[in-house]
Amino acid sequence: MREVGAPFTAYGQPSHFENKVVRTYASLPGTTGTGSARTPLQALDGMITPNGLHFERSHDGIPDIDPDTHQLLIHGLVRRPLSFSLEALSRYPLVSRIAFLECGGNGGALYQKTPVQLGVQGLQGLLSCAEWTGVPLAVLLDDAGVDPKAQWILAEGADAASMSRSVPLAKAMDDAIVALYQNGERVRPSNGYPMRLLLPGFEGNTNVKWLRRIKLTDGPMMTRDETSRYTISLPSGKALQFVFPIEAKSVITRPSPGLRLESAGLYEISGLAWSGYGKIAKVDVSADGGKSWAPAMLQEPVLSKALTRFRIPWQWNGGPAVLQSRTVDESGYVQPGREQLIAERGNNTIFHYNGITSWGVAASGELTHVYA
Amino acid sequence: MREVGAPFTAYGQPSHFENKVVRTYASLPGTTGTGSARTPLQALDGMITPNGLHFERSHDGIPDIDPDTHQLLIHGLVRRPLSFSLEALSRYPLVSRIAFLECGGNGGALYQKTPVQLGVQGLQGLLSCAEWTGVPLAVLLDDAGVDPKAQWILAEGADAASMSRSVPLAKAMDDAIVALYQNGERVRPSNGYPMRLLLPGFEGNTNVKWLRRIKLTDGPMMTRDETSRYTISLPSGKALQFVFPIEAKSVITRPSPGLRLESAGLYEISGLAWSGYGKIAKVDVSADGGKSWAPAMLQEPVLSKALTRFRIPWQWNGGPAVLQSRTVDESGYVQPGREQLIAERGNNTIFHYNGITSWGVAASGELTHVYA
Repeated sequence: MREVGAPFTAYGQPSHFENKVVRTYASLPGTTGTGSARTPLQALDGMITPNGLHFERSHDGIPDIDPDTHQLLIHGLVRRPLSFSLEALSRYPLVSRIAFLECGGNGGALYQKTPVQLGVQGLQGLLSCAEWTGVPLAVLLDDAGVDPKAQWILAEGADAASMSRSVPLAKAMDDAIVALYQNGERVRPSNGYPMRLLLPGFEGNTNVKWLRRIKLTDGPMMTRDETSRYTISLPSGKALQFVFPIEAKSVITRPSPGLRLESAGLYEISGLAWSGYGKIAKVDVSADGGKSWAPAMLQEPVLSKALTRFRIPWQWNGGPAVLQSRTVDESGYVQPGREQLIAERGNNTIFHYNGITSWGVAASGELTHVYA
Repeated sequence: MREVGAPFTAYGQPSHFENKVVRTYASLPGTTGTGSARTPLQALDGMITPNGLHFERSHDGIPDIDPDTHQLLIHGLVRRPLSFSLEALSRYPLVSRIAFLECGGNGGALYQKTPVQLGVQGLQGLLSCAEWTGVPLAVLLDDAGVDPKAQWILAEGADAASMSRSVPLAKAMDDAIVALYQNGERVRPSNGYPMRLLLPGFEGNTNVKWLRRIKLTDGPMMTRDETSRYTISLPSGKALQFVFPIEAKSVITRPSPGLRLESAGLYEISGLAWSGYGKIAKVDVSADGGKSWAPAMLQEPVLSKALTRFRIPWQWNGGPAVLQSRTVDESGYVQPGREQLIAERGNNTIFHYNGITSWGVAASGELTHVYA
């Protein structure tokens, strides 16, 4: 307090003492931008993910797009194709909503036969939540005039991978947004600047970043990213394709591996729950590997297709424990145990793992990823 | 799309095309850290302010505090004084809430006799909103054991100005939070790292940053910042002191001065409304300087003591117009016009201006600050 503090800055940054609270990332060999960057959920609290730490999955790097020249094209089965500048979109009525995004491959390591020794960031960090603001896609489609034959849309990004996905027109007309803002400011480059598709509750990569065109079609276009990837291979040899909504899921973020319990006594167990089908209705927490459960408090406001923070006090007796959470969404769907999920789906996939994640607590206070 | 994009980063930043979307700041002559930095409300949308753009009011710079050695002391009229490390606080049950912060001096320029030619950032930019997470102060005070004689608390920061304010104990026991997280990550240095007091709805500087101690007292301590400043001098020569809650207020952020309407036609008028007394019930918008009003849509979720985004479509006929917004909060209180506010309070103050802000639209499409 004896020294004058630092001056003002135009754009603020976190404290230098927080320089370990960062995204961890990995790219495919030989690439710098084909991979993902994961949110450090173990170090965060609340439901909002700050923009600098929002997870990212890119298929060929982050394009550098001039917002003054970028155009969004709407074409295909429409009465009149339309092209929108950012300026034109900004004159439309906008809507905001707080929504989670989760990569379809998040948690994929839990299909493996033995527990991969990572923490919540490495295992479940392709998960974030932000307030998104933009133009309802339905308004733009109405302006273009939807041909009655149109049943699907193809959304394509302006990245070098021209990442593209097909989704049913019904979703586009329901709650899809062409998002221009993320937590108040313009969408970050790594999240689709200057605009991305937001499909609340749908698996991450259908929320196409750097959105450049939407084509109305009579069926799915069978693009690379919906045939070779983002499908669920079943034990029968068949595959589940176009599995869009994220099933209800929850994970404990604190305590979790990498953190250590210093001494027996009172802790708060805190985590996140979410569902692509609506609101979270309930989260139960177990400290004995699922033998007994207690209901956690849900932090208000509980919003549809947003992350919900849950909390429950826990008295650690200093002995071994296994921490688990299990959520139920408003549809009544119950998050499955890992064994139950794999019994139904096999483990010849990395997608849509929404089973329970378990953290083992040792008498030393150390936490590890376990199967229980 | 022909070039591979940029690689992943550990902590993301906005696009370089957005390098004008920054806080503007000014310090008192001879200082670098006694002043304020203002949020660019004209460039933002939604209700969340991203952490890098949260407004800031500092009285002697931003201290560089090591979170591992910082302590929060609770003392004075308590059964046992307690000192908390950040680690100790993190074991308590936490709560999150989305809350606005507004400097008591925000909008102060509108007390002047002629309209100061600034935009919404310069006039009303000491206003932001974030999701704050921390320990309910009531829990810590209960642990310390409140002496029945205690009626007020003194909160003091660890900055070089040792900024301190007295507030009634009732507020501390109601909804005060010792905030550790801001929009998910640790509170930013400019907003009080590693911890700040959050008093939802109370004027900004009572939400003491870099919180180092809370002393329970039998009355207010008459500190520098509640006697020489942050009081409202009335025409009678008397002063209103300890005016804590922010009265209901609203402001149009887009369009606003600095932006320009390119052509006649459809625009969205969008802005923010807030009240320190609870939820926003209604916002009306006028395009003719208050002769006629129409109700704006309120963006859900409408939360108590948080910013509420309002929106209304507007057909600009290309002629002169005066844009205004007027809000009503759930208590039924109606935001006053500027003349009404000054008739009641005079203009020998810069604090708690919550009257209407008016933007004049010229036939050229240019916007300016006007009195109407």
